[in-house]
Amino acid sequence: MKLLHTADWHLGKIVNFVHMTEDQQYILDRFIDIVKEEEPDVIIIAGDLYDRSIPPKQAVELLSRTLTTIIHELEIPVLAISGNHDSPDRLEFGSQIFRRQGLFLDTKLKEQRQPVTLHDQHGPVHFHLIPYVEPAEVAHIFDDSSIKTHQQAAEKLLEDINDRFDMKERHVWIGHAFLAGGMESESEERLSMIGGSPYIDAHLFKDFAYVALGHLHQPQRVTADHIRYSGSILKYSFSEVNHQKSVTIVEMDEQGQTSFEKIPLHPVRDFEIVEGFFEDLMDGNAAEDTNNYLHIRLLDDGQLIDPMGKLRKIYPNILHLERKRSSNKQQLDELNKAKERQQLSHQDLFASFYEDIKGDSIPEHRKALITSAVEYLREKERGQ
Amino acid sequence: MKLLHTADWHLGKIVNFVHMTEDQQYILDRFIDIVKEEEPDVIIIAGDLYDRSIPPKQAVELLSRTLTTIIHELEIPVLAISGNHDSPDRLEFGSQIFRRQGLFLDTKLKEQRQPVTLHDQHGPVHFHLIPYVEPAEVAHIFDDSSIKTHQQAAEKLLEDINDRFDMKERHVWIGHAFLAGGMESESEERLSMIGGSPYIDAHLFKDFAYVALGHLHQPQRVTADHIRYSGSILKYSFSEVNHQKSVTIVEMDEQGQTSFEKIPLHPVRDFEIVEGFFEDLMDGNAAEDTNNYLHIRLLDDGQLIDPMGKLRKIYPNILHLERKRSSNKQQLDELNKAKERQQLSHQDLFASFYEDIKGDSIPEHRKALITSAVEYLREKERGQ
Repeated sequence: MKLLHTADWHLGKIVNFVHMTEDQQYILDRFIDIVKEEEPDVIIIAGDLYDRSIPPKQAVELLSRTLTTIIHELEIPVLAISGNHDSPDRLEFGSQIFRRQGLFLDTKLKEQRQPVTLHDQHGPVHFHLIPYVEPAEVAHIFDDSSIKTHQQAAEKLLEDINDRFDMKERHVWIGHAFLAGGMESESEERLSMIGGSPYIDAHLFKDFAYVALGHLHQPQRVTADHIRYSGSILKYSFSEVNHQKSVTIVEMDEQGQTSFEKIPLHPVRDFEIVEGFFEDLMDGNAAEDTNNYLHIRLLDDGQLIDPMGKLRKIYPNILHLERKRSSNKQQLDELNKAKERQQLSHQDLFASFYEDIKGDSIPEHRKALITSAVEYLREKERGQ
Repeated sequence: MKLLHTADWHLGKIVNFVHMTEDQQYILDRFIDIVKEEEPDVIIIAGDLYDRSIPPKQAVELLSRTLTTIIHELEIPVLAISGNHDSPDRLEFGSQIFRRQGLFLDTKLKEQRQPVTLHDQHGPVHFHLIPYVEPAEVAHIFDDSSIKTHQQAAEKLLEDINDRFDMKERHVWIGHAFLAGGMESESEERLSMIGGSPYIDAHLFKDFAYVALGHLHQPQRVTADHIRYSGSILKYSFSEVNHQKSVTIVEMDEQGQTSFEKIPLHPVRDFEIVEGFFEDLMDGNAAEDTNNYLHIRLLDDGQLIDPMGKLRKIYPNILHLERKRSSNKQQLDELNKAKERQQLSHQDLFASFYEDIKGDSIPEHRKALITSAVEYLREKERGQ
């Protein structure tokens, strides 16, 4: 059986005020090309289909169109779960009706927890769709208040699968979780840590033929070859600048032995970090592609007039402009960052935020406005 | 062929800060009972499935569950369109996949505009699903900039149907619009009046076997027996207090002749207007049912201490408490209302709003807070 494993689409994602819709549309068109070429028997989407519980309507349209193409035109079953970014209630709309067309979209842990079973010439493969759930929900379903961590929740779910199924048959776990050993990047939100660690021990999954994971954005295996994150379809943060995004093709044999191939996903615009002096950057050769999403670090010390405006004429998709500070100050900054922040006044904290986002220091009249607003609120707080 | 016609579900509706979810859930359970008893060949939902473009998740769940029951358990095809309250983009999610299961949900006017054709022993019946669209969209589709009103848009759509189809066969128009002759209530939002009247002349539809309309909340025929609003499933405003809500059963014969029956929908809590003196109301017999949603008009002149709090102990679902003013003042009020409002200060306007909503005058400390907030904003506006 041939599986195509993807995850973390984050449709509707906004990075530094820029909507990624066009990039997502482009990459999902490429995704469909890959599906046509690879002709997998089943497609797995391991959570975070949307970036937030109420996605923009363009994201709703894009997901609807993509799923419809896979189900109707390509006639390949889809097994999808919700991630920590999705709204289980909203994403669930119509899911019972979808099932009859081969779209299995589980957003809540069902009482029954029946796997979706598909067959190849060697027999059945059981796919366990485990959407992202808080430990408390698992505690509730099993009526076991001792379940307080993601680890305990996973243990319980696995114990239950072991009890009810013949693990000598081929089983696939589809989950959206943080398995110990995985590497984080900035654009994944921390999972709930109520009651302790968000991690799940990967060793728990040794009896599965394959474990298809979502949540971490970098494609990677976790402690064993058959436990994998497919990674996201696009870079969603500059911390992901060195990732090679891909989808994972899994070939599973009669015994449940698996082999893998990663098919790269090439975006219409890449993420790139560029460092240099303003004058050098203005010649237009500093980036791999002037249309890339750029994080620019300016090395200049002195004053520059509207560097963002001028650079944007050459590099239209700058997401972040950073002024490099003198190295002494930089060291100090790094050492004292956390400490400093705690001591900053509201005004200074906002000014620093403003500079971070706009790449320019906050103008005096805006600073005054913030000061007056903060003072007003403080007065109110003191009950006038 | 037996049609069941409903419309204006407005799932997620909030009336005076009260979520109608529980009432809607109850009435849709009754609706399912009616469907089971009547066993129609098809169910028509003529728009405004939701009350707003981003409905609360409980409404999404309720719609999903109800449609799933009809499609999967009862196996009756559903023909639904979006109304002016629905978001065409959001409601469209998965609609291509739903079609193959007998759920036809049109939220946008398609280029093709193919009707859904169902058959009985006498031959085909063509259902034209016309979601609520602005005249400009129709102008765009037909590349005809002379279309500026809902009337012109309907004329164009009908002309097109006449050109492409044999009108001697049986045709049904499913629309969400304001047909001339219909009676408005307060809870319908006015349709777009860009370019003039929102009305469409009912006479246009004479060649249809049946015209299934949504938008007006009172069940009614419009100028002819075969042109009907089913009305909403619940009362959504005190202006609808005298409506008898129902679904419409349509029996259509070989010739396209129709006969009708209205099946009443009885809510778990009715809307009721109650008028009387505070002391009399406190005996608990003033309302048909103490659990009804009440608009109470108090006839007392003098001061009352927390009448809302006291009345709510007996009538828990008061939505509106009105103090009747002396008749001289009342007349004056009515005459000068519009004029008065324009002259009111922000503070007085807010105080009047507060009293309207809470049924009590605004306490001094809250009034002072509003005053200080308004002054602060004004200062800001003057540029400090």
